[in-house]
Amino acid sequence: MSLTPFEHPFLSGLMGDTEIAPLFSAEADIAAMLRFEIALAQAEAEHGIIPADAATSIASALSDFKPDMEALANGVANDGVVIPELVRQLRLTVGGAASKNVHFGATSQDVIDTSLLLRLKTATGLLAKRLASTIAGLDTVRRRDGQNALMGHTRMQAAIPITVSDRVQSWREPLDRSAQRLALFSAEGFAVQFGGAAGTLEKLGDKGADVRAALARKLDLANRPQWHNQRDGLAEFAGILSLISGSLGKFGQDVALLAEVGGEIRLSGGGGSSAMPHKQNPVAAELLVSLARFNAVQLSAMHHSLVHEQERSGAAWTLEWLVLPQMVAATGVALSTAIRLLGQIERLGREGHD
Amino acid sequence: MSLTPFEHPFLSGLMGDTEIAPLFSAEADIAAMLRFEIALAQAEAEHGIIPADAATSIASALSDFKPDMEALANGVANDGVVIPELVRQLRLTVGGAASKNVHFGATSQDVIDTSLLLRLKTATGLLAKRLASTIAGLDTVRRRDGQNALMGHTRMQAAIPITVSDRVQSWREPLDRSAQRLALFSAEGFAVQFGGAAGTLEKLGDKGADVRAALARKLDLANRPQWHNQRDGLAEFAGILSLISGSLGKFGQDVALLAEVGGEIRLSGGGGSSAMPHKQNPVAAELLVSLARFNAVQLSAMHHSLVHEQERSGAAWTLEWLVLPQMVAATGVALSTAIRLLGQIERLGREGHD
Amino acid sequence: MSLTPFEHPFLSGLMGDTEIAPLFSAEADIAAMLRFEIALAQAEAEHGIIPADAATSIASALSDFKPDMEALANGVANDGVVIPELVRQLRLTVGGAASKNVHFGATSQDVIDTSLLLRLKTATGLLAKRLASTIAGLDTVRRRDGQNALMGHTRMQAAIPITVSDRVQSWREPLDRSAQRLALFSAEGFAVQFGGAAGTLEKLGDKGADVRAALARKLDLANRPQWHNQRDGLAEFAGILSLISGSLGKFGQDVALLAEVGGEIRLSGGGGSSAMPHKQNPVAAELLVSLARFNAVQLSAMHHSLVHEQERSGAAWTLEWLVLPQMVAATGVALSTAIRLLGQIERLGREGHD
Amino acid sequence: MSLTPFEHPFLSGLMGDTEIAPLFSAEADIAAMLRFEIALAQAEAEHGIIPADAATSIASALSDFKPDMEALANGVANDGVVIPELVRQLRLTVGGAASKNVHFGATSQDVIDTSLLLRLKTATGLLAKRLASTIAGLDTVRRRDGQNALMGHTRMQAAIPITVSDRVQSWREPLDRSAQRLALFSAEGFAVQFGGAAGTLEKLGDKGADVRAALARKLDLANRPQWHNQRDGLAEFAGILSLISGSLGKFGQDVALLAEVGGEIRLSGGGGSSAMPHKQNPVAAELLVSLARFNAVQLSAMHHSLVHEQERSGAAWTLEWLVLPQMVAATGVALSTAIRLLGQIERLGREGHD
Repeated sequence: MSLTPFEHPFLSGLMGDTEIAPLFSAEADIAAMLRFEIALAQAEAEHGIIPADAATSIASALSDFKPDMEALANGVANDGVVIPELVRQLRLTVGGAASKNVHFGATSQDVIDTSLLLRLKTATGLLAKRLASTIAGLDTVRRRDGQNALMGHTRMQAAIPITVSDRVQSWREPLDRSAQRLALFSAEGFAVQFGGAAGTLEKLGDKGADVRAALARKLDLANRPQWHNQRDGLAEFAGILSLISGSLGKFGQDVALLAEVGGEIRLSGGGGSSAMPHKQNPVAAELLVSLARFNAVQLSAMHHSLVHEQERSGAAWTLEWLVLPQMVAATGVALSTAIRLLGQIERLGREGHD
Repeated sequence: MSLTPFEHPFLSGLMGDTEIAPLFSAEADIAAMLRFEIALAQAEAEHGIIPADAATSIASALSDFKPDMEALANGVANDGVVIPELVRQLRLTVGGAASKNVHFGATSQDVIDTSLLLRLKTATGLLAKRLASTIAGLDTVRRRDGQNALMGHTRMQAAIPITVSDRVQSWREPLDRSAQRLALFSAEGFAVQFGGAAGTLEKLGDKGADVRAALARKLDLANRPQWHNQRDGLAEFAGILSLISGSLGKFGQDVALLAEVGGEIRLSGGGGSSAMPHKQNPVAAELLVSLARFNAVQLSAMHHSLVHEQERSGAAWTLEWLVLPQMVAATGVALSTAIRLLGQIERLGREGHD
Repeated sequence: MSLTPFEHPFLSGLMGDTEIAPLFSAEADIAAMLRFEIALAQAEAEHGIIPADAATSIASALSDFKPDMEALANGVANDGVVIPELVRQLRLTVGGAASKNVHFGATSQDVIDTSLLLRLKTATGLLAKRLASTIAGLDTVRRRDGQNALMGHTRMQAAIPITVSDRVQSWREPLDRSAQRLALFSAEGFAVQFGGAAGTLEKLGDKGADVRAALARKLDLANRPQWHNQRDGLAEFAGILSLISGSLGKFGQDVALLAEVGGEIRLSGGGGSSAMPHKQNPVAAELLVSLARFNAVQLSAMHHSLVHEQERSGAAWTLEWLVLPQMVAATGVALSTAIRLLGQIERLGREGHD
Repeated sequence: MSLTPFEHPFLSGLMGDTEIAPLFSAEADIAAMLRFEIALAQAEAEHGIIPADAATSIASALSDFKPDMEALANGVANDGVVIPELVRQLRLTVGGAASKNVHFGATSQDVIDTSLLLRLKTATGLLAKRLASTIAGLDTVRRRDGQNALMGHTRMQAAIPITVSDRVQSWREPLDRSAQRLALFSAEGFAVQFGGAAGTLEKLGDKGADVRAALARKLDLANRPQWHNQRDGLAEFAGILSLISGSLGKFGQDVALLAEVGGEIRLSGGGGSSAMPHKQNPVAAELLVSLARFNAVQLSAMHHSLVHEQERSGAAWTLEWLVLPQMVAATGVALSTAIRLLGQIERLGREGHD
């Protein structure tokens, strides 16, 4: 399987991500979906919607559930979503009277969107950590080379001398702001989705809000009324991802230009060429530009997905699936690549500046 | 001149905006640039960078400056930016010894970006007001029709009945969140740009930061170190615009679908057809979808502009000019169109629901 | 009016186009619409659909029609398209019995799309001419400097020496192919749109195809069954525009890099800086990159417009209006800018190559 | 591994493609690369560039080459491309004197781009076949239901009655034109890439063009001078893909609207819902819309890749890798989905029309 370099057997050498890609595996998705179904049963039991022992049976039976993946794929082929078939398998696994209490009052989007948010939250933790490392790496360069002279360039022309510190500052500040953006988003943005068939939790009587609050608490997600047809949160999140990769794209472009002009940067570990073994290509720097443009393009799809008609749009929703996981991966790879590139910078600017 | 419907002699009947478009006129731009140059002279005089009477002369002479527009156009043709020629004209206007104090220590990007931010701030005030009106309009519909029944639709199929209030809620919440996003951005986002030739304010000695702070204060903008090659703020702002128009696009798409299916909406003032005079086309609703997709596309350009190389990229900067003003206009028009559409909704849902 | 630099009082110094922009003026649009209505009346008279003298009256009365532009704008505000109000004005102008024969059997989209195609055809003639001049300009450079040495660069690193001729070849070939693309498209692509209310020419009985053929002939457009809800031709055309501007973007990027690295290009007439009068900025080269990315972004909107639902989509159609004219302008400006830039190249490569 | 639904263990039930996805596997890529290296050795032997028995040894040794995939991934991590490490492994496999004749005069891009084109050509054959089936499927529907009445809709409103045949025509014609586009592109578009280090085949003396012609013949590709930094062909190809998926998106949107309004379509096999077992969701129709918008977004990236600087751009090239394989997959899936959807249409329009 190799349609995307992020998972390609050999291109993943450059663009793989062993922490973030696994969050979007079928296994991770199903595990998060099971967390949802178990937490839902427990929350519903707490509020008397389903019997307490049903919740216990569900939690116990699902703890070692093994999906029939082929049947899931067939289910998706038919239904467009995995949940009808997954719930069928879950009910079979639970068996007995409790089986009908599985997934009670929920709908496909509740499970799929909540599973997504659980994993985006984990991914965001990883991204935030890498962002901090990137910023720390920039600070290291600045401490070491900050006083070195660098020729400032405007409009692709030498302008006046600046210092390495000036340039590093322009790489660092947008990342610092994006770290704040991620933190701010994280405060409220990872919210449970729970609305039932059309968002009204119509099967839970007057207990809908309480069950949702309990569910959110159990999943350690924010509690928010159903947002299944309000995709602004996801589009906003995607925007932050692209701000990060875009800012790293500027860093990469600047390094590539430094490498092309020469004299003001010393890079180790550049890439080789099959035709010219003497070359040291700034592979990591170029990749940052590619990933910046990739996310700048994908973000458009996430904003088209805002036109999510009525109570649920299969069309707009599926479009998100086609781009959001790869945007997360691209951002993760951009950050690790930036960290790697910072480690390759042996010297920036001209020494002996006074 | 009519390359864009926003300014087209007759298409502007539908897509014109008499408040927002003028903010992007050459006149408004020059007026804001003069505010910058006058405030700069005053701030520099306060800190002893230029003589106090030079600042007075500059403020006085520029108060009724009339540009030679043709010469400005020729200047842009040659320089790629208007400032070299504008400053030449300003210096000629000021005359005498003070002429050389005009624009002291500043560069093109300081003036152009600060002028942009001044006008984006004004535009944002207008957008925020319209957003509040849109939300109020939704509340009015909800108060009147909220208890009416509406058939909930998922995946383009009738699902289960919901209420008008449920649907209106899904239109309103993202707008409410975007109002908060605009407010949050406004708190710090409209920042003065002042860096000089390559961002280091090298002509102001140790007074750079003080002059910039004074300048920001005079212009009622946030004070932030130069950000000329850090475009994340503008891309973030563009993202909020597209979140607004995208959320309105969902509203428009839903209304158009209600109009197509029939029976659950009564609209006044739909558009006529030259071939079928009996029709009542949901013109405003469709326009909301167009504008949502327009901004979803343009946003991509703003994120490509993050790859703003070195101290100043003519390529990335010019790309912003080609899309950002129209994104603001599209958002403004989307909001007025939504307000108009809300006024056309005479009834939503089926009465007699119980 | 200045939302777009293509029409901005001073930015048009750099990005204006006095040949192409006027094709998208309201006046040019109305003139083309009148051509359609007159030719339609004549074609219908030839086939006995309307009286011959009605066609004569219509042609005569409309020959000096002056629109009430404000009423047109109000019409668009209400109807979403200009035609209902325009036809009202035209009928008033024609007066008498013939007035009801104006626009007979046609609908808004017939007039608007045919007017667009008439003008795109004219624009394409201009673009083709500029493309030929650009290619000629490249050939001139090659004749003069082709044997000069140039350092080949791969992955932003000096690779092995090539000649100027090699590099020019890589700029020229894609343009040559795009000239062929334009020619091929022109052979069939500029087709009349004529379908009536829902594409079936239901008011013309069995004469529909004949009238359409006559109409096409009179307008010197290709004859094709109605394509009002088949937008692939326009999206394909937009793709060719973006292939042109994209290939010029590579040329611009290469020139900007040559200018940055220095030593292998001598450019006259670069842009000045307000802070650094000594600089010679490669303004035209950078602009080519901006315009390439602008069209690369806009093209996405044209492809979204392919999802043009049912017999006519107000949403998808309006989206085209928001981007296609500017794509044509951007392409036209890119070509004139390339021609200008070629004129500024005084020398390419290193002389004395052996 | 599941970052993309096209390869996801269960989402591939809906969006998988067992014919096209394998063309982009690492195995298929390497197999095509080996075809290139073997054909190159043979072509070079024919023209006396390398010894004839070296070509024989190479062809024989590489016929059962097994890559060390982990070492390839490490190579890509370092070099940004797989070729340096792959060639090292190939030379090791060949061994002896012939080992130095492997890959003689070629560079990474020659192998990678030619491998891509070989596989795009195969993919295009599959797409063309599916396109023909789709058109045949439309013809079947038209034969069966063409005379049925259908309410024509313009601007999301009932307009006047048309026939099913009219509507099917508007789905079919753009596909027919795109079949011609694919055929026309296929005639010359799948061209060998062979240029050596910087495009000049500098190691082949005056035999460069002859070797390239022989290589093209052996690979059954068109013969064209090196195009490694001229990406217009790939962007044009991507445009055709998006024209196909976009036209299918209109078909899908129309079917979804027919399904929502009801009464004029009978669909079998719609998708189920976990909350509302009675529903028949038009899953395939919605998916066509998602895929249309996906490709409309991705196409933008392919046009940004036209700005491919100098003799080789790592940044622009890698961007292609991130989107083009998925565009091919999306187009393939759109076509199979359309075929499936056509099979689900049991009746279109209202019978008894006269």
